[in-house]
Amino acid sequence: MGSGAVAVTTATARIGGLRGLLREEGFDAALLLNPPDVFYYTGTKQPANLLIPADPAHEPRLFVRRARDFVEGDIRAIGFPPEWVADGQSFREVVARLGEVGLHGGVLGTAEDKLPANMFRSLGRALPGWELRDLTGLVLGQRMVKDAGEIALMRRACAIFEAAHGAIMATARPGASEIDVSLAIFAAMRRAGHEEHIPMRRWDAFLPATGGFTSGENLWRISGHAFTITGVGRSASVRLGPSERRLEAGDLVVFDTPTHYRGYHGDTARTYVVGEPNAEQRRAFAACMEVYRATIAALRPGISAEELFGVAKVAAAETPYAPYFMGYGDKQGAYIGHATGIEQDEPPVLSPRVTTPLRPGMTLAIEPKFIIPGFGAVDVEDTWLVTEGGCEILHEQPNELFVLG
Amino acid sequence: MGSGAVAVTTATARIGGLRGLLREEGFDAALLLNPPDVFYYTGTKQPANLLIPADPAHEPRLFVRRARDFVEGDIRAIGFPPEWVADGQSFREVVARLGEVGLHGGVLGTAEDKLPANMFRSLGRALPGWELRDLTGLVLGQRMVKDAGEIALMRRACAIFEAAHGAIMATARPGASEIDVSLAIFAAMRRAGHEEHIPMRRWDAFLPATGGFTSGENLWRISGHAFTITGVGRSASVRLGPSERRLEAGDLVVFDTPTHYRGYHGDTARTYVVGEPNAEQRRAFAACMEVYRATIAALRPGISAEELFGVAKVAAAETPYAPYFMGYGDKQGAYIGHATGIEQDEPPVLSPRVTTPLRPGMTLAIEPKFIIPGFGAVDVEDTWLVTEGGCEILHEQPNELFVLG
Repeated sequence: MGSGAVAVTTATARIGGLRGLLREEGFDAALLLNPPDVFYYTGTKQPANLLIPADPAHEPRLFVRRARDFVEGDIRAIGFPPEWVADGQSFREVVARLGEVGLHGGVLGTAEDKLPANMFRSLGRALPGWELRDLTGLVLGQRMVKDAGEIALMRRACAIFEAAHGAIMATARPGASEIDVSLAIFAAMRRAGHEEHIPMRRWDAFLPATGGFTSGENLWRISGHAFTITGVGRSASVRLGPSERRLEAGDLVVFDTPTHYRGYHGDTARTYVVGEPNAEQRRAFAACMEVYRATIAALRPGISAEELFGVAKVAAAETPYAPYFMGYGDKQGAYIGHATGIEQDEPPVLSPRVTTPLRPGMTLAIEPKFIIPGFGAVDVEDTWLVTEGGCEILHEQPNELFVLG
Repeated sequence: MGSGAVAVTTATARIGGLRGLLREEGFDAALLLNPPDVFYYTGTKQPANLLIPADPAHEPRLFVRRARDFVEGDIRAIGFPPEWVADGQSFREVVARLGEVGLHGGVLGTAEDKLPANMFRSLGRALPGWELRDLTGLVLGQRMVKDAGEIALMRRACAIFEAAHGAIMATARPGASEIDVSLAIFAAMRRAGHEEHIPMRRWDAFLPATGGFTSGENLWRISGHAFTITGVGRSASVRLGPSERRLEAGDLVVFDTPTHYRGYHGDTARTYVVGEPNAEQRRAFAACMEVYRATIAALRPGISAEELFGVAKVAAAETPYAPYFMGYGDKQGAYIGHATGIEQDEPPVLSPRVTTPLRPGMTLAIEPKFIIPGFGAVDVEDTWLVTEGGCEILHEQPNELFVLG
């Protein structure tokens, strides 16, 4: 499937969906400024302020802050009406437009998980009659269920991992550094259509551009925002991603990366051994696959995020590696995956106390792993679509304990 | 010079400097959460909350939110005292510490240009007796003047561009795509020590990982947050950086990139022609060099940012390309450069109405360019240190209209 699957009414359908949510939750209008949020409703990431009144009688406005040149073309892809585009550098145009449609006060929603405090303050000053309220949950809630066009793009994104895997099989040899291999991976992914930036929802985090190619003892050296395989990078400035460590015979190796095709992500991981795996490496990988299969078997509409995590945890407890499931000691994570789409990561995270029921159209990265100090790690991840009847992998590709060198 | 030039009292000296500014400006304490800000005062970017009371009688606390493992090593590099490190996941530990040192209310500064509104709200709830005030200007103001250790790292960062230039000379040929060449550049830069992430101060912007390799008509197709040579990327999702366009004989080509060594940046650009340059290309490049030389000749302590821009603008007006100086038409920028260091970009920007006087120790990227629709662009950039007597390039390297192929 190509992006031809995207309907030309996509943007207006999405905006209609948000308007319904705004009215249900008592918002009078939404003002979206985070580029991935704007992209979802308009097709462009050009710096812009998107104003959506809750009342369908009032047209939205996309106030483009700079360089409108690409906007007309970009919005066409998902059918955002060009007559809703205007120039606008500041909140002044937003205030004027609200007045124009008779909205002189009420509740204005912004994505407060991204909007900086200084802009939040100046928005408050520009709109004295308004209550500002967080609508992050509404936008990310709507984005949880993907449409056919989004799913088609995500299949393409997932397929990019094949290029990465090929590059690993061709270049990961004893003596090659993590950075050496990561460069071969990145080149292969870029040639396969990968974009060179992964937008993250979290304000203070980033992912290494070349993904996470991690080997040997670096597999249990954990840094950054999540208890997972992070890599250690090459300095205190970027304590993530590939390092200067050189591969050695006997190393376990994990490659885990988002792939990004035209705005949409997949998230995939595979495990490798440099040379023939020993019995313990095989056993650990088999245990990881057990947890993976049990989780996928339970992945269907109606099960909640926390219940799916519970299934994985029970399966992990039946292996010899339970203390190392999703990390170890005080560095043990409580999750079995997360949604993905336009940003890394999207809700729901598949964790305890997340009661969100899974629904058809959700796209979930399922990623069981054991991280075992002194030994290494095993990790398997693919992105799955929740369907009416259960689930479907977005892109089928080989998954075994691959032998390098 | 290596990073050995960093004094072991660097962190305490920087913290002492901030405390002085806090007292002058009426703040009782600072709470820093943006990782590059935390890095400047501590040496680590691990997710953490850094609390600095203004009164030197009260010890700072670095509350590390996760995975303390790397923190002890990272803070040693600039001498942040390990006894000031503690665990802390939330604002609760911050509130407790303020109480412990007898601070039950007052003015608390945070970097409000980065802190998201939802955290700002929850900080306000956690500290009802406190007024929250923006201290972005204080922190970035302090960071404007670099110390010897920072300058040494920036010299190393600037030298990384040599590897990029070598890769361009070796691979940029008719038929090669912008993406092809960018991959060769990126590999060479990484092997020369480049980190694979460029932190940006702006909340909603990013830079392409491989820098800006831009050719032909893409040189005047402008997107993104600044009116400059942006590249057009490969889709609406990333309208920046290299595209699938293939080089053709006669193309002008610009490569402009930050380079990142152990937390510090340089910013460099060079101009190329595919094949022998024609007379007009030579003339435009010579005009760009005229503006560059005039600007550098005026770069010394005491001149203000806006005055330096004025010098460049006058020099540009004396060339035949004045309408294309820093862009064209409604896409003309008003700047001749900006400071750089830990983030892209740092203040001051060298623009009208920026009255900041230049001071010894400032590191400024000077980047004159002409962007000429239907023709191409010429661009020259290096990073300069303001010295007592004038200025000094951080890393000397060839600068001419290079011939490719």
